[in-house]
Amino acid sequence: MPSPLILVNLKSYKEGMGNRAHQITTAAQLIAKESGVTIGIAPTYIDLHPLCHHFTVPIFAQHVDGYEPGAHTGHITADSLRLTGAVGSLVNHSERRLTLADIEGAVRALQAQKLVAVVCTNNEMTSAAAAALAPEYVAIEPPELIGSGVSVSKANPEIIRRSVSLVHAVNPKTKVLTGAGIQTGECVKIAVDLGTDGVLLASSVVKAQDPGAVLRDLVSKL
Amino acid sequence: MPSPLILVNLKSYKEGMGNRAHQITTAAQLIAKESGVTIGIAPTYIDLHPLCHHFTVPIFAQHVDGYEPGAHTGHITADSLRLTGAVGSLVNHSERRLTLADIEGAVRALQAQKLVAVVCTNNEMTSAAAAALAPEYVAIEPPELIGSGVSVSKANPEIIRRSVSLVHAVNPKTKVLTGAGIQTGECVKIAVDLGTDGVLLASSVVKAQDPGAVLRDLVSKL
Amino acid sequence: MPSPLILVNLKSYKEGMGNRAHQITTAAQLIAKESGVTIGIAPTYIDLHPLCHHFTVPIFAQHVDGYEPGAHTGHITADSLRLTGAVGSLVNHSERRLTLADIEGAVRALQAQKLVAVVCTNNEMTSAAAAALAPEYVAIEPPELIGSGVSVSKANPEIIRRSVSLVHAVNPKTKVLTGAGIQTGECVKIAVDLGTDGVLLASSVVKAQDPGAVLRDLVSKL
Amino acid sequence: MPSPLILVNLKSYKEGMGNRAHQITTAAQLIAKESGVTIGIAPTYIDLHPLCHHFTVPIFAQHVDGYEPGAHTGHITADSLRLTGAVGSLVNHSERRLTLADIEGAVRALQAQKLVAVVCTNNEMTSAAAAALAPEYVAIEPPELIGSGVSVSKANPEIIRRSVSLVHAVNPKTKVLTGAGIQTGECVKIAVDLGTDGVLLASSVVKAQDPGAVLRDLVSKL
Repeated sequence: MPSPLILVNLKSYKEGMGNRAHQITTAAQLIAKESGVTIGIAPTYIDLHPLCHHFTVPIFAQHVDGYEPGAHTGHITADSLRLTGAVGSLVNHSERRLTLADIEGAVRALQAQKLVAVVCTNNEMTSAAAAALAPEYVAIEPPELIGSGVSVSKANPEIIRRSVSLVHAVNPKTKVLTGAGIQTGECVKIAVDLGTDGVLLASSVVKAQDPGAVLRDLVSKL
Repeated sequence: MPSPLILVNLKSYKEGMGNRAHQITTAAQLIAKESGVTIGIAPTYIDLHPLCHHFTVPIFAQHVDGYEPGAHTGHITADSLRLTGAVGSLVNHSERRLTLADIEGAVRALQAQKLVAVVCTNNEMTSAAAAALAPEYVAIEPPELIGSGVSVSKANPEIIRRSVSLVHAVNPKTKVLTGAGIQTGECVKIAVDLGTDGVLLASSVVKAQDPGAVLRDLVSKL
Repeated sequence: MPSPLILVNLKSYKEGMGNRAHQITTAAQLIAKESGVTIGIAPTYIDLHPLCHHFTVPIFAQHVDGYEPGAHTGHITADSLRLTGAVGSLVNHSERRLTLADIEGAVRALQAQKLVAVVCTNNEMTSAAAAALAPEYVAIEPPELIGSGVSVSKANPEIIRRSVSLVHAVNPKTKVLTGAGIQTGECVKIAVDLGTDGVLLASSVVKAQDPGAVLRDLVSKL
Repeated sequence: MPSPLILVNLKSYKEGMGNRAHQITTAAQLIAKESGVTIGIAPTYIDLHPLCHHFTVPIFAQHVDGYEPGAHTGHITADSLRLTGAVGSLVNHSERRLTLADIEGAVRALQAQKLVAVVCTNNEMTSAAAAALAPEYVAIEPPELIGSGVSVSKANPEIIRRSVSLVHAVNPKTKVLTGAGIQTGECVKIAVDLGTDGVLLASSVVKAQDPGAVLRDLVSKL
């Protein structure tokens, strides 16, 4: 996946479902084309199918279980993601934590289907641990920045820099996303300057009155 | 929902996804119309959207989280189910167990959206407990029958009879489904004769070479 | 167990471990004897053994797993509780939630060892559900009162009254404890007047400078 | 902790509780003294207190939660382990899996109390991930060997060798234990020859008619 990546997590926000999911993805597709920056969308499970069928921007699941197809009620397999046209999945988001064994299983299951794994982590040590599982991306979400409205540029950015360094020491091929504290194009620029390959963000796009305007700002300093 | 109900759980079976989900639901719709028996389908999350848009038989989710819309990555809300046209959801399936507090939260969230809750349980006591939460259905899956290929008629049927009695003592309005040991129309008839309002089944339909033939047999003794 | 019961949960408070656990239990034993009121103590797992060996007041575990003895690393069985001299266990505390199937398993495992089950719940519906499992006690912890410092007498006490009524409709033998909002003897009196058989409380005793004085106040209006 | 380490997990076996825990630990202490080999014991939570007080061999918990002391009912803190005299804890045993964030939290909590962390893992990738968290030990339990009665010498030993190599590439200071497939002194010798610093085992000692004889055999080839 070309860098940098702007990955928008629609969570279960009312403002990110159904028609709104289509509107945000429409804006993302337009701005990605205009700017040449890769913008991915991670909608609810239910919107995966329609978004994959109507858009060309990369669509991610918000979670995947590392199971083979079979007797797994209420779970979501990598196999079903590939079938529907998704390009990958978040794994171990702070709102959907997994055991270490299950994270590894999910990364392996995604890779067996040629899908991209984005493993979310909460600090430097867990970022290094995630890198040892060889996912394409590790997304660091420092708890003190999640949903705080505090920009990563104003918080201590050292946690990002050190995480990049630890991740690359363990696995030079794993890319890092800044996973919290992103509101503006200035934040994205800082994230890239700190050595990360993009950002994972949610509310600042999804809950915006004009998500397209926010997306246009996010790519403006790249 | 009119009784009896034949509810087919497609789980994460390869034979129950994508095109196969459409084929099984097409057969279900035809046989429901022919026979007058209600046949519901519970596909993977990803197939919820296309099945709800292409079919009129009742479509259920396999699991739902009792959350309001919001910052819940990798979860599925009752609100999103209603938006997509599902009629209800399984809750607490043996392959997706929940805490008691979360079962209650899911049942409340479904009912707030006018959706049908089918709470799965493993024995008589937990069936009675589930009934106290006032869901529309309790589906009893005796562990010794799950995926066993053993017909409920050959196993001791007393657990079903006693569960019906305990459920109705706690909540006379809650209907009961026989949730394991169903292969044939004879099994469905026995389930109904034992006092249940239908069946919840999976592999005998989903993994059949001709799911339509199995469905036609299932409704044949009603 | 004679009513009313004052059950003190020492949680993992620093002020409730080791020597402090001994001091609190010493005070409880003295005041129980003076007042004739039953006072139980639920210490950390580690303090179960010494407290059971040094005191005669009823000692409860804070959690139990419904397993038979066997290959269960990091779990705690009813069998081991009986062996050490505990009289019962909390089950499904709000800080240690269990699946419905596991709550039922834990209640059955405790009763097979002649131990007392105290199942914690969060509202009226889950209290009724817990009662269907036939534990000796259901302890209602309304989330809005937990650790709030708000007395149950000042909050709306109707949730307690309605829970008692629902619990007894399902199972007349199950006793109810008021599980949050208890600071003083006045609160205990209100709890009993609302129809409950006692109280489950924690910080107001454990974190008190003089736990004995608090305990003496708690039993003073009975 | 001096190498090699023989760490005996008593699990929740009936044959490893109460008096039997004392007998096994008595034998361990004697044989450790005779042979100069370090033998550790991981009893149930309830036996931690009496074993720590009666014996000098290192006593480990089977699980620890990475919490500070506080409102954590039914959990076990590193602080309480230190208080009782334990030297460390298993973390993330295959029978008590944790999220990645919680494994990291438990390792940090143990180290803050100067206690030894033994993180259990299921394959090479998760072993490398665990090493990134900098615990003193990683114990590899290949699922195909757990409780199988198959000796690691007869199974493919390459998984152990590759895990040691991956662990040391990530963190040269982390020691590795062979965590499954150990029955005899010959197995222990093979484990050490494969580059590990000892073994983690359970049933072959705990369920033996004469645990002392098994322990004496285990240290016999070192």
